[in-house]
Amino acid sequence: MKNLFSTNEWMIVEKGFHPELNREAESIFSIGNGYMGQRANFEEKYSGDSLQGSYVAGIYYPDKTKVGWWKVGYPEYFAKVPNTTKFIGIDVTINQTEIDLARFKPEQFTRILNMKEGYLERNFTINLQKGQKVEISSMRFLSMADPDLCIIKYKIKPLDFNGSLSFNIYLDANVKNEDTNYGQKFLEDVNNLAEPGIAMLTARTLRTDFYMTAGMTYEIRINNKKIKCTPSVINKKGYVANLVSFTFKPDDEIVLFKYVSVQSSLYCPPENHFKNTFARLRYAKKSGFNKLFSAHRDEWERIWSISDVKIEGDIKAQQGIRFNIFQLNQTYTGKDERLNIGPKGFTGEKYGGSTYWDTEAFVLPFFLKTAPINVPRNLLLYRYRHLQKAIENARKLGFKDGAALYPMVTMNGEECHNEWEITFEEIHRNGAIAYAIYNYIRHTGDTGYMKDYGLEVLIAISRFWSQRVSFSENLGKYVILGVTGPNEYENNVNNNWYTNSIAVWTLSYTIQNIDNLKEKEPDTLEKIFRKTRFKYKKETQRWKEIISNMYFPFDEKRNVFLQQDGFTDKELKPASIISPSQRPLNQHWSWDRILRSCYIKQADVLQGLYFFEDSYDTEVIRRNFEFYEPLTVHESSLSACIHSILAARIGNIDKAYELYLRTARLDLDDYNKEVAEGLHITSMAGTWLAIVEGFAGFRISNNRVKLVPLIPKKWKSYSFHARFREILFEVKVTHSYCIITSLSDNTLPVSVNGKNYDILPHKSKKISI
Amino acid sequence: MKNLFSTNEWMIVEKGFHPELNREAESIFSIGNGYMGQRANFEEKYSGDSLQGSYVAGIYYPDKTKVGWWKVGYPEYFAKVPNTTKFIGIDVTINQTEIDLARFKPEQFTRILNMKEGYLERNFTINLQKGQKVEISSMRFLSMADPDLCIIKYKIKPLDFNGSLSFNIYLDANVKNEDTNYGQKFLEDVNNLAEPGIAMLTARTLRTDFYMTAGMTYEIRINNKKIKCTPSVINKKGYVANLVSFTFKPDDEIVLFKYVSVQSSLYCPPENHFKNTFARLRYAKKSGFNKLFSAHRDEWERIWSISDVKIEGDIKAQQGIRFNIFQLNQTYTGKDERLNIGPKGFTGEKYGGSTYWDTEAFVLPFFLKTAPINVPRNLLLYRYRHLQKAIENARKLGFKDGAALYPMVTMNGEECHNEWEITFEEIHRNGAIAYAIYNYIRHTGDTGYMKDYGLEVLIAISRFWSQRVSFSENLGKYVILGVTGPNEYENNVNNNWYTNSIAVWTLSYTIQNIDNLKEKEPDTLEKIFRKTRFKYKKETQRWKEIISNMYFPFDEKRNVFLQQDGFTDKELKPASIISPSQRPLNQHWSWDRILRSCYIKQADVLQGLYFFEDSYDTEVIRRNFEFYEPLTVHESSLSACIHSILAARIGNIDKAYELYLRTARLDLDDYNKEVAEGLHITSMAGTWLAIVEGFAGFRISNNRVKLVPLIPKKWKSYSFHARFREILFEVKVTHSYCIITSLSDNTLPVSVNGKNYDILPHKSKKISI
Repeated sequence: MKNLFSTNEWMIVEKGFHPELNREAESIFSIGNGYMGQRANFEEKYSGDSLQGSYVAGIYYPDKTKVGWWKVGYPEYFAKVPNTTKFIGIDVTINQTEIDLARFKPEQFTRILNMKEGYLERNFTINLQKGQKVEISSMRFLSMADPDLCIIKYKIKPLDFNGSLSFNIYLDANVKNEDTNYGQKFLEDVNNLAEPGIAMLTARTLRTDFYMTAGMTYEIRINNKKIKCTPSVINKKGYVANLVSFTFKPDDEIVLFKYVSVQSSLYCPPENHFKNTFARLRYAKKSGFNKLFSAHRDEWERIWSISDVKIEGDIKAQQGIRFNIFQLNQTYTGKDERLNIGPKGFTGEKYGGSTYWDTEAFVLPFFLKTAPINVPRNLLLYRYRHLQKAIENARKLGFKDGAALYPMVTMNGEECHNEWEITFEEIHRNGAIAYAIYNYIRHTGDTGYMKDYGLEVLIAISRFWSQRVSFSENLGKYVILGVTGPNEYENNVNNNWYTNSIAVWTLSYTIQNIDNLKEKEPDTLEKIFRKTRFKYKKETQRWKEIISNMYFPFDEKRNVFLQQDGFTDKELKPASIISPSQRPLNQHWSWDRILRSCYIKQADVLQGLYFFEDSYDTEVIRRNFEFYEPLTVHESSLSACIHSILAARIGNIDKAYELYLRTARLDLDDYNKEVAEGLHITSMAGTWLAIVEGFAGFRISNNRVKLVPLIPKKWKSYSFHARFREILFEVKVTHSYCIITSLSDNTLPVSVNGKNYDILPHKSKKISI
Repeated sequence: MKNLFSTNEWMIVEKGFHPELNREAESIFSIGNGYMGQRANFEEKYSGDSLQGSYVAGIYYPDKTKVGWWKVGYPEYFAKVPNTTKFIGIDVTINQTEIDLARFKPEQFTRILNMKEGYLERNFTINLQKGQKVEISSMRFLSMADPDLCIIKYKIKPLDFNGSLSFNIYLDANVKNEDTNYGQKFLEDVNNLAEPGIAMLTARTLRTDFYMTAGMTYEIRINNKKIKCTPSVINKKGYVANLVSFTFKPDDEIVLFKYVSVQSSLYCPPENHFKNTFARLRYAKKSGFNKLFSAHRDEWERIWSISDVKIEGDIKAQQGIRFNIFQLNQTYTGKDERLNIGPKGFTGEKYGGSTYWDTEAFVLPFFLKTAPINVPRNLLLYRYRHLQKAIENARKLGFKDGAALYPMVTMNGEECHNEWEITFEEIHRNGAIAYAIYNYIRHTGDTGYMKDYGLEVLIAISRFWSQRVSFSENLGKYVILGVTGPNEYENNVNNNWYTNSIAVWTLSYTIQNIDNLKEKEPDTLEKIFRKTRFKYKKETQRWKEIISNMYFPFDEKRNVFLQQDGFTDKELKPASIISPSQRPLNQHWSWDRILRSCYIKQADVLQGLYFFEDSYDTEVIRRNFEFYEPLTVHESSLSACIHSILAARIGNIDKAYELYLRTARLDLDDYNKEVAEGLHITSMAGTWLAIVEGFAGFRISNNRVKLVPLIPKKWKSYSFHARFREILFEVKVTHSYCIITSLSDNTLPVSVNGKNYDILPHKSKKISI
């Protein structure tokens, strides 16, 4: 895939059509608007290899669990996002020949993702029989301004010949998912309407009863003059269409505008779908392509104005970071607390489109620093809404008294995952959800969140830790046995340092907030205690006992934290000696071999040092970094970014940059040979963090934006927008100075390399570095 | 299930029909003859709940692996024994009413398993409409003398009424397995033949192409007079039958003899199936029921004469042990080195009918002590035949240079299991296969086996251990990381004491045999070296290095071997505090909870002390027993027997008896509520060992049978047959003496409580104890 797409700072451009890489391109050129999203499938018929994908946010099918050997507590299903009604479809027939790029090799083919304005474009020429040449271009977007709308402009120009053309403009619910456990259908069509000029189709997810209605209307212009046509109407099972035919003359410019509205039962009761769809289609057609596109473009302009990163001197890096920011914003707009960010967003089926701890650990910090407060707040409320289910989930595993274990993978709060070493043991996820509350409040200053929602979640998670630890008479300490840490290349280990750390941190933070509220709002606290049946003395006493007596594995000889008990009993050899032919390890080594090796998939101790950086001095971080980095194979897309941030933290900009490169163009250059399945949406946030928290050293410290700016040798400068407690600002870093500009009406308190500055509203400050 | 079946020393008797327990009864009353076996399904139609099962040895279907999350090295399939053609079927219609015990509640129902003579019997009376009463009895056996034959005698006596009767005598290949991963059919019918008086049906396993042909003929007698009848012939897809109708008078005794022969492509090429079946059916019919039964009974008499255990004073124990001996002999007759013993034998589908380490660790010692040498020898040759596949299996997991890892579960030598913590990590199985060679030779004296077969296997297994260990700089020792021991309630642990022990033992034993052969038959050894590309100096040097520097976890405080690293960091609380409502743990606790608990599923350190008893004095065994037994929940059917043997070893007969009771009637009393799925065939050997090795203290020591006889308080006496190097002998133990009788032409060297005796041929010796 490398170098397939030419580098351009605002666009991804595929030059020439490569059918063998079509799935990869379909992933990379995906578009979305938070409400829905789709792979870059073609509008016209394509009989070649393709992964069809149109997805609607928040809708899922409970695919029956597939597991070889059942264990108590496994979930019944894995929530999967269905591939829904294909609504982009336009079959094109010219002089009895149907356009199909698998049959007619296109010339001058380009597929373009315009990230600045948020649209997908294709241009190509094909030669029909007898040397008849046609220019075709298509352009579509999922509106950021009107999220239920998809607008397509499909343009055809027959060169030097005349004839007849027909468009079969359709909606098709006869679709399926490739990734099903037992080959089941996820959807059924329940209602059709097809009339001249308009058609609708309602589909329902089986078992979960979500309803989605796609409706379409259209307009055809020849040489910019609207034409009247009398379409044939097709209405059959799960399929509605208008077939429109007309004649053309040489060099006519024929343009079809297809206006689609998608209703979802998340927002509109099924009985109103047709009515609403009529209204929305009327609105769309009346507004017209240009007006709708303009509103859409304005939204993207607004997004870029608060989240862009500019890099001078490295166009590949520039393209890479913008691609990541673009995809993150396409996936999640933060308008609905029921939604979240699946690992593949709207770009593929894999991992079922559900929520992982990626959200709290990686994506939240991105939105905390780039988006208005409602966006990260909704990410937190998502988990708050699932609290009761997390308590039930813990109960299934033998916990009681309101202890909560948030699921490893979920859609609606119920656990979906079914590997015991992950589902039951990768419990550090619970800590990340607690940490997210802390992270949210320190970034936004929204302290009210704690009493309204946060504390209930913290209490339930702390109760889990309190029950999950056991006391080792042998060690005279509390221990946490049988866990899997962030590094999933170790399973069922004892005393994972990261897990023990975040458990103790949660307990402390919860107590701290209880005590804080006790002082400030005792009545509110009392209400929370009643609601959660909290026994203050008994519970906090136990927590304090655990905090004071937790066991942390430590290697005296090397003076580093031990990833887990017994880690240094392994043969410790650097990952650099592994033959490249053996990488990634999980595709070449059997699982036992990976487990007994010293190789680390993903930041583990270092993840903890990243979260709790303030508790450790630079030398501790350096020692641990230098011990663990050579052993880390970074076979998770979420790993290198954390290592990069810590490398920068210890001042090793070269290493930070080397690690940054591993994540920045992960999908664009298809490092892991899996982009065909979809993009790594959640890890894209990590790349952004590697620049802003890594190179620029952005932290929140003493209610101030703290910066310790570094810059990779290769770059001339970089700049980014970020926000701190609703103060939007810009930072530009060069090799000799940085400029900080407040873009808001408030004064921004910053510190640069340890020195404090107050940046006045709408003013800049240039600081030598 | 408790007390459902009345106790009888030679029979299992179900009194009264209990449809809700029909599956349980079908398992318990199963019959087999090593060549085939079947659940106690009814001959006549039964529309109630039933698990239909007819199985033919050595035949399997490769059921596509079902796994949630694929890992490198997982096998493609799990070998499952297909439920084959139903050949016992006889539909009975009397005066237009079809007999179906789900519709007509039978009276005076008995189902009897006669273990002494090896047959299954049913007797019942039913009331048809208008008060018409019929007595029905059926009896059938799978011949031990003619293993391809199943003979059924079906008797009907209409009381006080006349009318018409029809038998629909059939073979039906339209059968399926309940336990399939994707609902696939395992079998298809390929050839039918149906004529008056005879019918045949060939079925083929899909993908593996095993062929099985069932053929039938029959004879009908009324009041002991053969009747002529002109049957209707039915021949349809996968189904052949003869429908015979006739009239009867009150109190007529109508008897149908159905003769079935089953051919398998393991023994007869498919093209000869029909021809052979004809011949076998002719032979069967000509011999007649009585003669065939008599030959069958003689075989059972012979089996009992060498393997019976008699218990005076405890009829439930007597019935239990005979049931176990009976089932073991029904499952495996040792005639074919391609066959082995599935955990459920021929009594159910579960666990796929494949081979586990149960064979070497539990079943082999039973046959070593009760059966002629060819029987255990064939069990060893089974593994020898699979050596190349075990080498391939190891190669898939990254091992090289002829290292072998025998599969966890197999049919033909290929791994079938697909849980990483078992498949890849439960490697101690490899040690059991090495140990079996040692055990075989010390029991049989067949030292030639070593050079002919054994050493090649030992070298390959030793090479595996040599590559599987790693050197821990930290400990200055060799370690074995990431294993699952016999106790499967711990996964992915480091330095499982049992595994480390059997690994070192294998290395030593291999070197010892190499050196032994070096001295005695250097040329033979040279040949083995060439065949295995063995580098004597280099390989044995490394092995010796490992032997001298293996790490064994040990608890200084308690002076016991540690099950694994970190075991005593757990909360150690006796299993007795667990509420019975929580047992078995694996049906009530999530896996993580089991793993971090201290509870042991199955003998682990104690399994090692059992195998290597000679290396440890009684005090060591006692200390470890007393530490581990209270923590052991015995949720494997293979656990309590080993604990029982060790309890006897340390002189604790009460504990030994208590543990013995947990295994002796496991299935008869359905302790684990799972007998509906089939019997625990392999664990039945453990019960026998608990008496013979446990209570009687039978060991081989210095080429002598060593006995240390104890007897449970409740028993008056017990006696058993056993053999030592082809010398059959009997031991009877009472509370004051034991009598040892040689039943062979050779003098039997024994020691009783440390004192030596030589028992002359066909003589007895009474020894006070």
